[in-house]
Amino acid sequence: MLKEAIYHRPKDNYAYVCTNGELHIQIRTQKGDIKKVSLIHGDPYNWVDGKWITAEASMKKSGSDQLFDYWFISLKPPFKRLRYGFILDDGAESAVYTEKGYYTEAPVDDTAYYFCFPFMNDADIFRAPDWVKNTVWYQIFPERFANGNKDNDPDGALPWGSEEPAPNNFFGGDMEGVIDHIDYLKELGISGIYFTPIFKAYSNHKYDTIDYMEIDPQFGSKETLKKLIEVCHQNGIKVMLDAVFNHSGFYFPQFQDVLKNGEKSVYKNWFHIHEFPLVTEPRPNYDTFAFTPFMPKLNTENPDVREYLLEVGRYWVREFNIDGWRLDVANEVDHAFWRDFRKEVKAIKPDLYILGEIWHDSMPWLRGDQFDAVMNYPFTTNIINLFAKRTIGVKEFIENMSHVIHMYPKTINEVAFNLVGSHDTPRILTLCGEDIERLKQIYSLLLTFGGTPCIYYGDEIGMTGSQDPGCRKCMEWDKEKQNLELFHHVQTLICLRKEHPLLANEGEFSFVSPAEEESCLAYTKTNGEKTILVILNTTEEQAVYTLPDGLCKTNAKNLWNNEELEWENEQKLKINENGTAIIEFS
Amino acid sequence: MLKEAIYHRPKDNYAYVCTNGELHIQIRTQKGDIKKVSLIHGDPYNWVDGKWITAEASMKKSGSDQLFDYWFISLKPPFKRLRYGFILDDGAESAVYTEKGYYTEAPVDDTAYYFCFPFMNDADIFRAPDWVKNTVWYQIFPERFANGNKDNDPDGALPWGSEEPAPNNFFGGDMEGVIDHIDYLKELGISGIYFTPIFKAYSNHKYDTIDYMEIDPQFGSKETLKKLIEVCHQNGIKVMLDAVFNHSGFYFPQFQDVLKNGEKSVYKNWFHIHEFPLVTEPRPNYDTFAFTPFMPKLNTENPDVREYLLEVGRYWVREFNIDGWRLDVANEVDHAFWRDFRKEVKAIKPDLYILGEIWHDSMPWLRGDQFDAVMNYPFTTNIINLFAKRTIGVKEFIENMSHVIHMYPKTINEVAFNLVGSHDTPRILTLCGEDIERLKQIYSLLLTFGGTPCIYYGDEIGMTGSQDPGCRKCMEWDKEKQNLELFHHVQTLICLRKEHPLLANEGEFSFVSPAEEESCLAYTKTNGEKTILVILNTTEEQAVYTLPDGLCKTNAKNLWNNEELEWENEQKLKINENGTAIIEFS
Repeated sequence: MLKEAIYHRPKDNYAYVCTNGELHIQIRTQKGDIKKVSLIHGDPYNWVDGKWITAEASMKKSGSDQLFDYWFISLKPPFKRLRYGFILDDGAESAVYTEKGYYTEAPVDDTAYYFCFPFMNDADIFRAPDWVKNTVWYQIFPERFANGNKDNDPDGALPWGSEEPAPNNFFGGDMEGVIDHIDYLKELGISGIYFTPIFKAYSNHKYDTIDYMEIDPQFGSKETLKKLIEVCHQNGIKVMLDAVFNHSGFYFPQFQDVLKNGEKSVYKNWFHIHEFPLVTEPRPNYDTFAFTPFMPKLNTENPDVREYLLEVGRYWVREFNIDGWRLDVANEVDHAFWRDFRKEVKAIKPDLYILGEIWHDSMPWLRGDQFDAVMNYPFTTNIINLFAKRTIGVKEFIENMSHVIHMYPKTINEVAFNLVGSHDTPRILTLCGEDIERLKQIYSLLLTFGGTPCIYYGDEIGMTGSQDPGCRKCMEWDKEKQNLELFHHVQTLICLRKEHPLLANEGEFSFVSPAEEESCLAYTKTNGEKTILVILNTTEEQAVYTLPDGLCKTNAKNLWNNEELEWENEQKLKINENGTAIIEFS
Repeated sequence: MLKEAIYHRPKDNYAYVCTNGELHIQIRTQKGDIKKVSLIHGDPYNWVDGKWITAEASMKKSGSDQLFDYWFISLKPPFKRLRYGFILDDGAESAVYTEKGYYTEAPVDDTAYYFCFPFMNDADIFRAPDWVKNTVWYQIFPERFANGNKDNDPDGALPWGSEEPAPNNFFGGDMEGVIDHIDYLKELGISGIYFTPIFKAYSNHKYDTIDYMEIDPQFGSKETLKKLIEVCHQNGIKVMLDAVFNHSGFYFPQFQDVLKNGEKSVYKNWFHIHEFPLVTEPRPNYDTFAFTPFMPKLNTENPDVREYLLEVGRYWVREFNIDGWRLDVANEVDHAFWRDFRKEVKAIKPDLYILGEIWHDSMPWLRGDQFDAVMNYPFTTNIINLFAKRTIGVKEFIENMSHVIHMYPKTINEVAFNLVGSHDTPRILTLCGEDIERLKQIYSLLLTFGGTPCIYYGDEIGMTGSQDPGCRKCMEWDKEKQNLELFHHVQTLICLRKEHPLLANEGEFSFVSPAEEESCLAYTKTNGEKTILVILNTTEEQAVYTLPDGLCKTNAKNLWNNEELEWENEQKLKINENGTAIIEFS
């Protein structure tokens, strides 16, 4: 038994409580080493005749990554508290693993040996809004989605789509444009829009805020935003705005005041100034986002700044009834600020969604006291490597993805913001070498996987573009130039996801373990009664896929299209090159 | 290279910021496997010609437990943000370990591979009050320390020490008694008192509160507490009170109201009631501490209860200037409550100390947003097993203790509340089989180790007693019956700790790796200029101890007593049975 590989530490992804009162426990062991894991557990205060009373329950292997197996169990401690250990059996040897180390027999003279989940307090449960896990998001970069009002175009705005996007050009996209195309979004079937910033700012991307309390005039007015939100809500679409609280823009008046008045400025403690006077070259002598002098980092530890930003957070929820805040560069702002932020905005609207931009392991922000979800870039990377770039195979994809999934509680994975591209990455079709079949398959996965999927505007009609600014082209509204087959593909998948909650976040998810050099990626979602199997042939050749044990032709129903499934026999199914099958077994 | 043994996850004990601006990073590897570890690191935004700019720095092995080696480095990222990985070398093979897995060469095309410490925000730094790490605590169980005022004795109080302590007997100890003996405490040299509860309650231990806003009349009045605190402060002694917020007592009027009025009680949501009417047998049908019907669990998620308890927290700080709160059964109360509690009490007195009673791994409460320290019972267990019970040897002691030390940031270990007994455990001398020499050695360790040591009243004069109630005897004030040699031993150690900050929490701590079956436990504290070596012979036979490399007779100064050290040669020192040496090398 490789004891060095075994890992468990209570809380986070290893022991956590769900809103339904279940306690989930996970342990990690070396891949292939352990044959059986049982949980030995009991109420810490349940003693008879000087002996602690315990029970045992079998744990289930929930997945494997490159190096480890993960084991899972869900239980409901009757008195909401638990001490527990793990009985591990590798076939030759059995050991009891506890907080204090390894024992050959489970000690019952003291509970102090054991791991401790002290009490399942309701206040500490991770709780994302219910609506989120059934939402399909659509990301809009307002300057480039649609120009609905020529009157508010910025000076020098170019005719729509007349040029390639550049760091400093403008095309006049605005909120009226979104309102004008609400039918398009409804037709596509999305149920939430994430807008990149719309507050008054200098650049075309608006991440350099000048006034957090005003709409950028090139996008419209507060009235326009009210109308936009009303129209969205009437159409069952949630609205999420972008909060850029890590840094302000260079032209934020408070920063301009410091530039002008130096040490005498009343705002000097709103930023992290190293010395006066301020210089921007060769590097700014004040903290910034990256080394960009135009984005001075806000001092969120200053009570005035905190109150200012908290009021921004409250204001747009209170006055405009927005449904979510996406937090830019969220991990560079202090945790203490985000805890206050959550309290304040949820006090106004308890089912507001809080999404943090974090590209790395985000557990410290997802403990229930800060964010509801983060942008799931590790997911993005794996999708791109398997489907777009073909740099990894099915086996490695499953291992990598299992690694990411097991880094978080299930309740967090259900609301993970799964994206395959954004205003910060090359467009996904471009990464696919403009191969539409690959992109279709990516959507087949994105929209049948757990989490909440997000579509970057225009990706659904086959827009291309490289890294920023290339990925920020004007939306193509000419139907002739839109890839309608792709649009229809995405639309069908969204419909299917709505019809079959198993395709979203109901039921239990498992990858089907692939044979070596398997060409098909497959996973199941099951609720006991029904199982949905998704098969994706990731090669350019037809494949014959053998169904997992327990599933066969007799009970299969093709959910994906009206065509007959091509069976080779009861358990073997032909899948076309880059083909998808979505089959329900009942 | 055993990759399965390698562990690192940013934050907690693996990556944290200190108040002096240092970022500490730790990694765990299989014991004996890895020969060299270097940190590869850089600012995430520091790129030249499309390549990320990195530096390398060697990490130091900081200790080992049964299965693992731990490696440590401290650095000061100039822009307060870091991406990093680990270059591991086992002699045969080298690998770069990152958040995304293992690489043979460090990738420089993207920082997303690497571990991320996004920004060293000041607001998130763990920060215990400065005074704590130099404090020597003394725990007083007020009913049993001294009876200073016969007039407030409860009905039926027994003559002092006339009987063995029982669950329900009283001896009249009170706050006047503590004031009367302040000179004794000063003579001993302690600098902080932790009082078990003094608020109005039913039992002799007072953990079943009736009124959180009143002093129990048997202990005195609010005036007496004011006087006591004044006297303590005049004598350089801090005062910590016990907050029992997990549960109230049965006779708490709000609970009595629910008992009487059932569902109609305005206080019905102050507790966790499963059904009405309330019953106490066979088990209470409301949540309790353990299964004790006399301790109903408070519903700290109810805003009224929160505000009530927060006001209790604030009141005794604001009005009585107490220096610390010890939190009873702290881990069964929700984290959200403790976060508010910390904010509220620290707003009144920023250097107030918050100590949680947690017997298990306590990392989730020690992230800077809740407690300053926890009662370090894992420390207690190891001390007892080596010195009192002799069930483990020096090697195992070091491994166990290294395990505990590496579970927490250094900044947390500096203020760990290290105890060898309390009102909840048998007395340490009893556990030593009443062998005073063993107990003296335990104090030699306790008072030369890191953390903040605590002495349970009477242990310093050789009191005995088994598990509660036996450990709660009346303090022995008859000098004839006190072990004055033991008292002097403890007193000398406290003096030494004050004179030599290295013996408290200055400098760097290391265990000296023992030979197999070593009889002496040894550790060093060093600040570069000076090194103090503590040697404890844990056997009943004289031992010859070989000094670690770099230390020898020539530069040695005996700090412990005035006797000549008995050298066998330049590096070999004789240590008597159960003997202690504390030697300074300069």
